[in-house]
Amino acid sequence: MPKLVLVRHGQSTWNEKNLFTGWVDVKLSEVGQKEAKRAGELLKEKKIVGDVLHTSKLSRAIQTANIALDSADQLYIPVKRSWRLNERHYGDLQGKDKAATLQQYGQEKFQTWRRSFDVPPPVISDDSEFSQIGDPRYREIDQAVLPRTESLKLVIDRLLPYWQDELAKDLLEGKTVFVFAHGNSLRALVKYLDNISDNEISGLNIPTGIPLVYELDDNLKPTKPAYYLDPEAAAAGAAAVASQGTKK
Amino acid sequence: MPKLVLVRHGQSTWNEKNLFTGWVDVKLSEVGQKEAKRAGELLKEKKIVGDVLHTSKLSRAIQTANIALDSADQLYIPVKRSWRLNERHYGDLQGKDKAATLQQYGQEKFQTWRRSFDVPPPVISDDSEFSQIGDPRYREIDQAVLPRTESLKLVIDRLLPYWQDELAKDLLEGKTVFVFAHGNSLRALVKYLDNISDNEISGLNIPTGIPLVYELDDNLKPTKPAYYLDPEAAAAGAAAVASQGTKK
Repeated sequence: MPKLVLVRHGQSTWNEKNLFTGWVDVKLSEVGQKEAKRAGELLKEKKIVGDVLHTSKLSRAIQTANIALDSADQLYIPVKRSWRLNERHYGDLQGKDKAATLQQYGQEKFQTWRRSFDVPPPVISDDSEFSQIGDPRYREIDQAVLPRTESLKLVIDRLLPYWQDELAKDLLEGKTVFVFAHGNSLRALVKYLDNISDNEISGLNIPTGIPLVYELDDNLKPTKPAYYLDPEAAAAGAAAVASQGTKK
Repeated sequence: MPKLVLVRHGQSTWNEKNLFTGWVDVKLSEVGQKEAKRAGELLKEKKIVGDVLHTSKLSRAIQTANIALDSADQLYIPVKRSWRLNERHYGDLQGKDKAATLQQYGQEKFQTWRRSFDVPPPVISDDSEFSQIGDPRYREIDQAVLPRTESLKLVIDRLLPYWQDELAKDLLEGKTVFVFAHGNSLRALVKYLDNISDNEISGLNIPTGIPLVYELDDNLKPTKPAYYLDPEAAAAGAAAVASQGTKK
């Protein structure tokens, strides 16, 4: 039976500082490293063994996978990485303080950029220090189509080809597939798998570092509701994510 | 210009204990983790950016790669893993103390098993706790052909198909290829690349955690002698490896 296990990366050094991150390649904080270790311990406790690992191209997701698979004793599994699993590109907000952005633009714009389905933040300039144009990790992508900003809708648009070509392919072979990625790329996957409406998806907060398991049938439909390997910690974590950006 | 960068994993918990390891999946010691970090710093200092990473299926090589690429800020590069890059299978010596084995069997047998080109140690029993038969990490390999013991010659036999199908393929595309592996799988590669004789290869000791760089022409012949990114440390490290097994 195909099984899909989603893990959102642990706290990064910029989460800690309350900055918009997006495609900026920051690493895990010490708290994030502990979250990653805990994710691996949960996989080990529940005896979930992956057949293949998919990660984004961003260090914080890869570090989370590396630490978790080390603690789960599954470092050996095959790995694929793709920019299509990256976090949402936050456009010109990348590198900006969340609380300062809230003050500067007001609650309405701030919430629209963070939570609307299809309104992306302002485009980032290619010569911004927080742009990814020219970054060697994306050299295989046409630089003209590299995102300069994204709404959740645009994330779904670039993620679904990866679902179809890679994740679904592995799952249709009956594999247990691990995906270590980001708040918005995982939200896009969950929206698709659970058929969540455009309006409702913004209310979904995926906690960090707690594996979320989908058991699927041969048509890749969930056979039961997805479940977290640590439901209590997941509920607390989701609440913490929901309150992000309101810190002063 | 194709570039091949070989890195032998850092000290493992069993190196530290002076046990024959082979395919037993032990992890890095703290010393080994520091060596891995240093390997990454050397890559960063020398501005060597990988296009693709190949590792064995063993945790100590994967950990070395993960730590080194983290410290080199190159976690994002694509990864392939293969049992063909594994350490030599040490047969029935796996799990045994090196000094005790030396005492039990005498210097001649001990040196033959460690250093002869084509005499493998005694075969390990499939029900030994140190056998890899049934290990999920090798489920894609016909269990009947999984090694039960290997000489260096047998390592070369199973490694060369991987050179031809994977490493040479990447190099012929002009890529910079990182290989994180083991004393004997790397010795096999070096023997092939530098055309070292069966008799002379046993004298070659590759130090741990110091990247060894081959610059290759379009026919994958070295354009100059391979070089270590830290030659002084490499010389000291090779001497230390050569004296292994003589500790009491």
